[in-house]
Amino acid sequence: MTAASYAAVDWGTSSFRLWIVSESGEVLAERRSGEGMTTAAKTGFSGILESHLQAVSAPPHLPVIICGMAGARQGWVEAGYLDTPAPLSGIVKAAVTVPDANRDIRILPGLAQRSEEMPDVMRGEETQLLGAISRLGSGSHLVCMPGTHSKWVRVTGGIVDGFSTFMTGELFDVISKHSILSHAVADGGAFDGNDPVFLGAVAKAAKNPALATNLVFTVRSGQLLHGLTAPAAKARLSGTLIGLEIAGALSTAKAGSSVCLVASGSLAALYQSALSALDLNPVTIDADEAVRHGLAAAANAIWPA
Amino acid sequence: MTAASYAAVDWGTSSFRLWIVSESGEVLAERRSGEGMTTAAKTGFSGILESHLQAVSAPPHLPVIICGMAGARQGWVEAGYLDTPAPLSGIVKAAVTVPDANRDIRILPGLAQRSEEMPDVMRGEETQLLGAISRLGSGSHLVCMPGTHSKWVRVTGGIVDGFSTFMTGELFDVISKHSILSHAVADGGAFDGNDPVFLGAVAKAAKNPALATNLVFTVRSGQLLHGLTAPAAKARLSGTLIGLEIAGALSTAKAGSSVCLVASGSLAALYQSALSALDLNPVTIDADEAVRHGLAAAANAIWPA
Repeated sequence: MTAASYAAVDWGTSSFRLWIVSESGEVLAERRSGEGMTTAAKTGFSGILESHLQAVSAPPHLPVIICGMAGARQGWVEAGYLDTPAPLSGIVKAAVTVPDANRDIRILPGLAQRSEEMPDVMRGEETQLLGAISRLGSGSHLVCMPGTHSKWVRVTGGIVDGFSTFMTGELFDVISKHSILSHAVADGGAFDGNDPVFLGAVAKAAKNPALATNLVFTVRSGQLLHGLTAPAAKARLSGTLIGLEIAGALSTAKAGSSVCLVASGSLAALYQSALSALDLNPVTIDADEAVRHGLAAAANAIWPA
Repeated sequence: MTAASYAAVDWGTSSFRLWIVSESGEVLAERRSGEGMTTAAKTGFSGILESHLQAVSAPPHLPVIICGMAGARQGWVEAGYLDTPAPLSGIVKAAVTVPDANRDIRILPGLAQRSEEMPDVMRGEETQLLGAISRLGSGSHLVCMPGTHSKWVRVTGGIVDGFSTFMTGELFDVISKHSILSHAVADGGAFDGNDPVFLGAVAKAAKNPALATNLVFTVRSGQLLHGLTAPAAKARLSGTLIGLEIAGALSTAKAGSSVCLVASGSLAALYQSALSALDLNPVTIDADEAVRHGLAAAANAIWPA
């Protein structure tokens, strides 16, 4: 059997993912759980990590490289932020070591944009970017990383010039659950990115972003006056928020930037469809692969063979 | 003592207001409570109304004119909608009578904009408009009625051409309570409309509305990176949503429309300040007076002296 070289962990707010990686870069084992920072802050980071390492019979001294919220102030050990403009390779040098651990555990920092006008932070996405950078090539790129807090990153030749967070995913969630629209979207099955209601909402919000919170209300009025179904209500809400996000992100881009989408699964399909509807044809990079590649790049730099 | 002529009720989703009005139009008594439609749909509309009428010793046959959510499908008696374009005087003719009541009780309808593209509804604001119309004069007006669901109404010479609802107040509420920003705004004291953080956010959102959900996220990143205080966090969130709303509403206005603000109390001050910051100088009409005047116009038409 190939020997394990290191463990790689993507530790988000509400998710934990671990891969055991061989010297040749092969994934020997994988673990996924909902023990994100929120849980770990209560029950202990070390215990969760060791239980997953034990579950895959990891050697006692296997080193561990971690990205994400484990490095937040309210996480395990604060890993701070690298300030933009920042070379992506800099995050490896700024990794912090977990003190008093039985093995070598490093946590990668996030990125901070300290502008008074447009302050912004990310944790975890910088490692995805590091993993995606070899696919981007030279020139200026606008990299879309959709999610609870979508990040749009302006990258030129391995340097992060700046970035913008849009609260799209979280707004979809709190509006669906806690606003008057909750009745309209309740029990609505899934919709897909080719749904004309979704694409129509993307186009409308991108064309006149100022009407965003009015378009959101048409989910309610559309239900009252036109019997808008629950899946269509969800599609309209999602499309409005995503169209608004894309219009905003484009307004921050350098002229001539190429658009790149770093995403996985249904979110990748949704954004691919929305971007295409707006005549943007992004290169798509799988986000799961990107974070593994980024953690591998960090591990290989910290523990060279 | 002057004899009571009618009772006027503004019955909202979460509030109930009643005025006893004399033949000369004088307010003889007033009641306010939190027994809005949400409460009344459970405990009964008739009981709530009669208990308030008794509390002010209203005569047994005093007629009652009602506007607002009591006329919704989930209200007392459905009063339907008048379709736009609609003359405001038409709402009086479309009033419905509560059947089997011991007194003459009329409920005014709402307005509906049945466009497939931009469906919209209002209930209660049409009566404020009716009350404000004499103050507007001829020409085209863009009337701002801020609140949980802000309404911006396009009125020409007593005819409602169309309107747009913006979910500003409700979004402020659900984002403050249920999103990651809840920590940043928690326990924040009040801010006022002259707060530079509020005015800065209004200007930014109005200038680049596409960045709205990014500007909202800077409440969180501003707290993390620059120690944004809770009142400033609230001011930024509020200013962003209001600036977005104003930009959207202006995009729907006929050229040459004059802007009119129908609002009361702190909300009036906040919008007055935001509109002034964007070089709009609205005529302001008190919303409480407007709804009383609108109910009076309806009562005088239905029960002429």
